[in-house]
Amino acid sequence: MSEKIETRLYVTESLAAGGAVSLDRDRTHYLRSVLRLAAGAVVALFNGRDGEWTARIANISKNTTELGIEQQTRKQHSEPDIWLVFAPIKRARIDFTAQKATELGASLLWPVMTQFTMVDRVNVDRLRANAVEAAEQTARLTVPEIREPTKLDALLDAWPEGRRLIICDETGAGKPIAETFSDPDFSNTASGLMIGPEGGFAERELDRIRNLPFVTPVSLGPRLLRADTAALAALTCWQALAGDWTSGRPNGL
Amino acid sequence: MSEKIETRLYVTESLAAGGAVSLDRDRTHYLRSVLRLAAGAVVALFNGRDGEWTARIANISKNTTELGIEQQTRKQHSEPDIWLVFAPIKRARIDFTAQKATELGASLLWPVMTQFTMVDRVNVDRLRANAVEAAEQTARLTVPEIREPTKLDALLDAWPEGRRLIICDETGAGKPIAETFSDPDFSNTASGLMIGPEGGFAERELDRIRNLPFVTPVSLGPRLLRADTAALAALTCWQALAGDWTSGRPNGL
Repeated sequence: MSEKIETRLYVTESLAAGGAVSLDRDRTHYLRSVLRLAAGAVVALFNGRDGEWTARIANISKNTTELGIEQQTRKQHSEPDIWLVFAPIKRARIDFTAQKATELGASLLWPVMTQFTMVDRVNVDRLRANAVEAAEQTARLTVPEIREPTKLDALLDAWPEGRRLIICDETGAGKPIAETFSDPDFSNTASGLMIGPEGGFAERELDRIRNLPFVTPVSLGPRLLRADTAALAALTCWQALAGDWTSGRPNGL
Repeated sequence: MSEKIETRLYVTESLAAGGAVSLDRDRTHYLRSVLRLAAGAVVALFNGRDGEWTARIANISKNTTELGIEQQTRKQHSEPDIWLVFAPIKRARIDFTAQKATELGASLLWPVMTQFTMVDRVNVDRLRANAVEAAEQTARLTVPEIREPTKLDALLDAWPEGRRLIICDETGAGKPIAETFSDPDFSNTASGLMIGPEGGFAERELDRIRNLPFVTPVSLGPRLLRADTAALAALTCWQALAGDWTSGRPNGL
């Protein structure tokens, strides 16, 4: 809820005391023209591997920023292994899904193309940008991996052994989601949540999904939910019952 | 998740077989110019009291639509008594909060003004319009009540006896939310969820809140959540564990 008044940036370089990082033109513009930062200002950096570090601006020009890494402020820690597989939806709501899923700790976002999916192209770079921005703004130390859109059958064929797939089933055939995730069997088990398109899965698709041994259908209650709402609700329930919300206390914040 | 391909409209009039309802200019414009409906077309109506009814357009002009009520398609049913009290946030995200909270079954939305709330005016009509639209689009049979914005102290003074207040406490002092809502004591008990402003509650505010006998602080896990995400996550957990998601099967859908 509270947002720290500080600038956090995701970078790909390794982070260690005494190291240096340079930023591209877009990020330089953001620091210089939007945030009005100058040489000497301190920001926080993270890369998903080395924790969070303070870094001081050594030089900032029109096109590039040079930063000197100073000290580690938070250690890297492991995060729950929870994937979100979702049929793409229209622009504003797919942006929103990427942002909120990042806040809620999804480790991977994977658009799935189903028979009734209405959106036929997904801008993966835009999904990633939304995830990076959400991680930067909410003090997350990682950014979810973003997969290329994949057709449902290919995705199911490629589903990794040992990973559960929980399908949010709008036909109400599944058990209540809280009952499912309260089972200790689900606790901190590598899992994926799948949300169908607004038009629902096709009957053929549901038949195949339900017969897979690694699939568990769950119900999200008596009201219809839009696809983006269902995605966030499922992720919330997983974190609250099977993920890392059971621990209670913010990590290093 | 799936959205029925039909037009559902919230009206305030009573609904009964053989009755008539007329719609104002805005809704007439929507039916006539956006949806291209003409006399003879059938829509669904609900008012939060009498269930859902089909109604046929008898006349549609530029300024008004006359509808004849035909038959009941769903009975009214009681819904969980869960309030959402939230410090207002900026425009797009407050719209979003009203929409999603409606989908997730909040019975009342109440903006609270706290010391660090950055938004000083709330457009209550706009909040209501967002809630109505979300109810129409997701087959809900009621629309949440919308309260006028109220200062925190006055809101706490007026808090109804017997209603719990669950505060989403970003300091991490509360128990994990799933642990709290799994307590049978919370099951289907009249409750309110309170989400603070993005800047957090003031120390004085937290002191007062925590010392109230009807307050339970809860934690929403180790990641920072934006205020709108926290609101939806808390509502999801309540419905999944203490509300009507425990029943599993869609009601009349």
